[in-house]
Amino acid sequence: MVSNKQLKLLNQLKQKKYRNEYNLFVAEGIKTVKELMNADFEIHQIFALEDFFNQIQHPKSILISPSELKKISNLKSPNEVLGIFEFPKKIELDRNGITLVLDDINDPGNLGTIIRLCDWFDVRKLVCSKNTVDCYNPKVVQASMGSIARVSIIYEDLETYLKPEKRPIYGTFLEGGNIYQNNLEKEAVIIMGNEANGISAQISQLIQHKITIPQFGQNQATESLNVSTATAIILSEFKRKTSF
Amino acid sequence: MVSNKQLKLLNQLKQKKYRNEYNLFVAEGIKTVKELMNADFEIHQIFALEDFFNQIQHPKSILISPSELKKISNLKSPNEVLGIFEFPKKIELDRNGITLVLDDINDPGNLGTIIRLCDWFDVRKLVCSKNTVDCYNPKVVQASMGSIARVSIIYEDLETYLKPEKRPIYGTFLEGGNIYQNNLEKEAVIIMGNEANGISAQISQLIQHKITIPQFGQNQATESLNVSTATAIILSEFKRKTSF
Repeated sequence: MVSNKQLKLLNQLKQKKYRNEYNLFVAEGIKTVKELMNADFEIHQIFALEDFFNQIQHPKSILISPSELKKISNLKSPNEVLGIFEFPKKIELDRNGITLVLDDINDPGNLGTIIRLCDWFDVRKLVCSKNTVDCYNPKVVQASMGSIARVSIIYEDLETYLKPEKRPIYGTFLEGGNIYQNNLEKEAVIIMGNEANGISAQISQLIQHKITIPQFGQNQATESLNVSTATAIILSEFKRKTSF
Repeated sequence: MVSNKQLKLLNQLKQKKYRNEYNLFVAEGIKTVKELMNADFEIHQIFALEDFFNQIQHPKSILISPSELKKISNLKSPNEVLGIFEFPKKIELDRNGITLVLDDINDPGNLGTIIRLCDWFDVRKLVCSKNTVDCYNPKVVQASMGSIARVSIIYEDLETYLKPEKRPIYGTFLEGGNIYQNNLEKEAVIIMGNEANGISAQISQLIQHKITIPQFGQNQATESLNVSTATAIILSEFKRKTSF
C-alpha cells in the first residue's frame, strides 16, 4: 500500500525544489533500480510488484499492486518497481583523466544520453553548469538507463571550476579545428555547449583548443549536430586516439 | 483562413494510412519548410503567418493567424509556418558510396536524428525496413531538422534489398570486431538494428562484417548505446577512416 504521505512525497519529488530540499530522487524500472542499489545509492523507499519485492527482500521495500504502480509512475509503461533514493554524498572530482563539462544543457533526454555515453566511454566525471537541467529529473534518470549510478556528477559555476584547471581545455565550435586531425590528450577537459546557443562567450575565453566535427560532402546545409550525437563522436575520438 | 476541408486533411495526415493514400506529409517551422522548398519538394499548401507569407509570396500559401497556427500545429511552440508537401518521386537508390540500412527502428526521434546524421556525413541513401517508423511521421520530420530534404529514403524488404548487394555489408553486434581497428570500406552497406532487439536473425546471416563500438574501462555495466549515438560514432569512423 502507498500511503497518502508517500503519495505526497512522490508528487513533490517531480520538482527540483523538493528534490534538493529532501536530497531524494525517484528512479524507475528493474534495470535502473538494481544498478543504483549495486552502486550503493542509499535507499529511502522501494515500491515493488510481487516478483521484484520477493527477489530483493529489502527492509525498505513495500509491496504494491500494478494499479498502484501505474498511479505513482512517471512512465507510460511502468516496469515492476519505483524507488526513492538519496542523493550521493557531495564529492570533489579529482582533476585527472577526462572530465566532461556541460554549459547549460536544457533537454533531459540529451543529458540522460550524455550520461550513458560517459559510462560507455569510461568518463567518470561530469561537471554541469548551474543552469544545466537537473540530473535527478525523472526523465534524465530514465534516459541514462542506469548509467547515472556510475558517473560522478557535480553542479558548479563553470568559471570557478575551469580557472584553476591545468589540463588542456577543449570546446566544440563551428570554426574549430578538425577533430580527426587534431592532437587529443588523454588528460583533458571537454566542454559541450547549449542546444541552441553553443558554448557561452564567457566560457569560450577559457578554452585553448577549439575543435569541430567537420561536415562531409558539398551539400552543407544542416547547421549542426544534436548535442548528444556530437558528444558521442567527440568522446569516441578522444578515447580512440588515446587508446588504440 | 483554414477551411474545414483543410482542417480535416491536416488531421488525417497525422496518420500514416492517409499520408500514403494522398502522398502528402506535413512539415513545420521556417527552417524545415524552407529546406524542403529549396530541395524542390512539391508544395501542396503552405499555411503561414504574415512575415513568412509576405516573404515567400507563393501561390499555394495561405495567410493565417497565430491562433489558427496554434490550432493546426503539432508543436508545443509553433514556428511561423506549417506546410503540406508531396512525397518525392519514387526513386531507385544507386549502389555506390555508403548506404545506411535500418532494421526496424521504432522511435521517431531516433529516425529523425539518424537522418540528420546522414546529412552531416554525406550519406545520401537510407534504406528502411518495412517496419521502420514512417519517415514522414511529423515527429521524424521535426527531429530531422530539415535534413529529410537532402537524404533519399526508401522502404524496402531488407532481404530483397541486400541479396543482390556487391558492396561489403557491415552490421553492429555486441560480439563484433572493434570498429576502431577494423578495415572500413569507402563503398559499404551499414546496418543498424532495432532499439530493443538489434539486427534480426534473418538479416544477420547476410552480414559479412560484424563490428562493435568497444566499451571502455573495467566498469562494464551499461548494456548498449542508444541507436542514434551508435550511428553517430559508426558513420564518423567510416568517414574518418576513408577521408583523412
